[in-house]
Amino acid sequence: MKIINEAILPRGFKANGVSAGLKKSGKLDLALFYSEIPAKASCRFTMNRLQAAPLKVCKDYLKKSRVFQAIIVNSGNANCFTGSSGVRDAIQTTKYVADYLGIKKEAVLVNSTGIIGKMLAIDKIKSAIPDLAQGLSVAGMEKAVRAIMTTDTFTKAITARINIAGKVVTICGTAKGAGMIAPNMATMLAFIFTDANITQKALDKATDVAVNESFNCITVDGCMSTNDTLAVLANGASRNNLIKDGKDFYLFLEALKKVCLELAKMIIKDAEGATKFIEIKVEKAKSFNEARIAALAIANSDLFKTAVYGENPNFGRIAAAVGASGIDIKEEDIKIKVSSLKKKQVFVNVGINRGKSSATVYTSDLTPEYIKINAGYN
Amino acid sequence: MKIINEAILPRGFKANGVSAGLKKSGKLDLALFYSEIPAKASCRFTMNRLQAAPLKVCKDYLKKSRVFQAIIVNSGNANCFTGSSGVRDAIQTTKYVADYLGIKKEAVLVNSTGIIGKMLAIDKIKSAIPDLAQGLSVAGMEKAVRAIMTTDTFTKAITARINIAGKVVTICGTAKGAGMIAPNMATMLAFIFTDANITQKALDKATDVAVNESFNCITVDGCMSTNDTLAVLANGASRNNLIKDGKDFYLFLEALKKVCLELAKMIIKDAEGATKFIEIKVEKAKSFNEARIAALAIANSDLFKTAVYGENPNFGRIAAAVGASGIDIKEEDIKIKVSSLKKKQVFVNVGINRGKSSATVYTSDLTPEYIKINAGYN
Repeated sequence: MKIINEAILPRGFKANGVSAGLKKSGKLDLALFYSEIPAKASCRFTMNRLQAAPLKVCKDYLKKSRVFQAIIVNSGNANCFTGSSGVRDAIQTTKYVADYLGIKKEAVLVNSTGIIGKMLAIDKIKSAIPDLAQGLSVAGMEKAVRAIMTTDTFTKAITARINIAGKVVTICGTAKGAGMIAPNMATMLAFIFTDANITQKALDKATDVAVNESFNCITVDGCMSTNDTLAVLANGASRNNLIKDGKDFYLFLEALKKVCLELAKMIIKDAEGATKFIEIKVEKAKSFNEARIAALAIANSDLFKTAVYGENPNFGRIAAAVGASGIDIKEEDIKIKVSSLKKKQVFVNVGINRGKSSATVYTSDLTPEYIKINAGYN
Repeated sequence: MKIINEAILPRGFKANGVSAGLKKSGKLDLALFYSEIPAKASCRFTMNRLQAAPLKVCKDYLKKSRVFQAIIVNSGNANCFTGSSGVRDAIQTTKYVADYLGIKKEAVLVNSTGIIGKMLAIDKIKSAIPDLAQGLSVAGMEKAVRAIMTTDTFTKAITARINIAGKVVTICGTAKGAGMIAPNMATMLAFIFTDANITQKALDKATDVAVNESFNCITVDGCMSTNDTLAVLANGASRNNLIKDGKDFYLFLEALKKVCLELAKMIIKDAEGATKFIEIKVEKAKSFNEARIAALAIANSDLFKTAVYGENPNFGRIAAAVGASGIDIKEEDIKIKVSSLKKKQVFVNVGINRGKSSATVYTSDLTPEYIKINAGYN
């Protein structure tokens, strides 16, 4: 597997980003991703019961068909808690895109990220779409990656290349997210494009595994978003032998996992106000899920996170968080190791002496800067 | 019911506080509460699986008997995550007190609060007990109330007086707690003394109801403590007609609820680094428990708490927190009202259109000062 630390679109994909005027700053705020040929889609959404309007629209379209050609994304407004008007705006957005590209609106996924509870400036989006669509290109991906950012301080993209029986298959992913990050999904958007020729079933399975071990293992503030979406589009343009199972599937899975995990880590590295990148591994659990529950309990403890910020090696707070996680743990079974807190990267290792499974979770410290960013965000 | 905003010990109770040298500051750190006659006890402890050594000892004693005469409490060290040595130290502490007072060690409850994971300086406690016990008096309550404090910035005490068939019954409570506060129990210690003559069954029932609607409805940081303890001692010294049920029981219950609720609110008013006192009422829920779950989801959302700190009326964060609470809620059923955020006291009212029950939860904002306090606490 070859890893490239930037976005290189696979065959058949194009993208672009423009400023539609949704962000007061005038920064790029509307992105379009496009596949010249219909692509199989596998999507995952937040578990929050309050779901943003575009998620409702995507879910509705996904019920009808799993084949898509475009993803339209705006930043600066989440189009959430906006009632039936919000849903109408999201549908309208897919229609504008579809009309311009000459495809069905049901072939367009739509996403929004930004503030909750404000109506979308749909006219601005409508006006921006001709420029956005005309400018679609392979190089346009760089602008698209920037256009999905909100409080992100750097762009997040990565590309993996694998060889499936003599054909090069590319998996290119981009993500945004810096706050309101918690698993199921983390509060974020992630879009992954591949030219792999793969069955829908294999694509869904690979997506499940990859998301579970990456985006579902990160947390910034334990706050579950209303807009989290991950979409994988596979257009088959590399004309590799159809991936179904066996060795080819595992090659694809490993590459997809790598792309997801690296994007997830980038989100944590960009966590709002963070000064530390914290990796928490819980070992000797009864299952991966149990290990992840314990690790997330630590990762979501404000007291633990402030202790790391203060470079204050307070093991008691780690033990207390594990004890509060709901796992039936005994004091004498908890073994804690923590690397030096003076460094930017901190490793926490917790053994719980209950079994053979482990899970690794990524988080950041809780800082006065996080509060400053979120107290003023409006 | 008459309410007095200070600690006035009921008949038959004495208390004292001294400095045993557990706190570096030299402040009072060892408290003793004593009933001249054996008292019925009703206790509640944290749900954290990691339980401090004194809790293990108290639970063991409570299995043998429900009659107690003393509570010994140290601040500055939680005696938690301290293994079998910690348990030995807690037992030893009850023994020193018992020997000096001429009672059984199994009649002494023991508690600790402070840093987790450090061994107790048991010799300092041993040396301090003679002075502590000799100084027991009604007026000594003032020192005892101060000696249980850790990061608390003010003492927390209240007294309620009721009339049971011509006899005055007094209920006097004190509490400590300012951080690591979450329900089940909140991270805190609370000791309540009454001269009521009441059956064990009625005392237990009243304690259950009062705790559920007070200490289990507050949160500072969602971090569940390892030491939370509430103990109610009823010594019967007022010689009122035995309280079992009916009107007398409800009179007693209302007074106990009032004492618990006021102490719980004091803890929130003293929350680490807080600038706001936030009251969150969720209405039209299917049950009290459902309403409380929704209210606590809001109260524990870092994004909501920072928004209140920033006086930033971000309704979307309230809706997102309710949506993430696990309750099967529909967007159109959420109705949110928030009072002016410019004031020190903030009221949040959320209707969820599912039933007729409501619950009120109390919390504080999340501030840079909270982080400063907890980053440096060691």
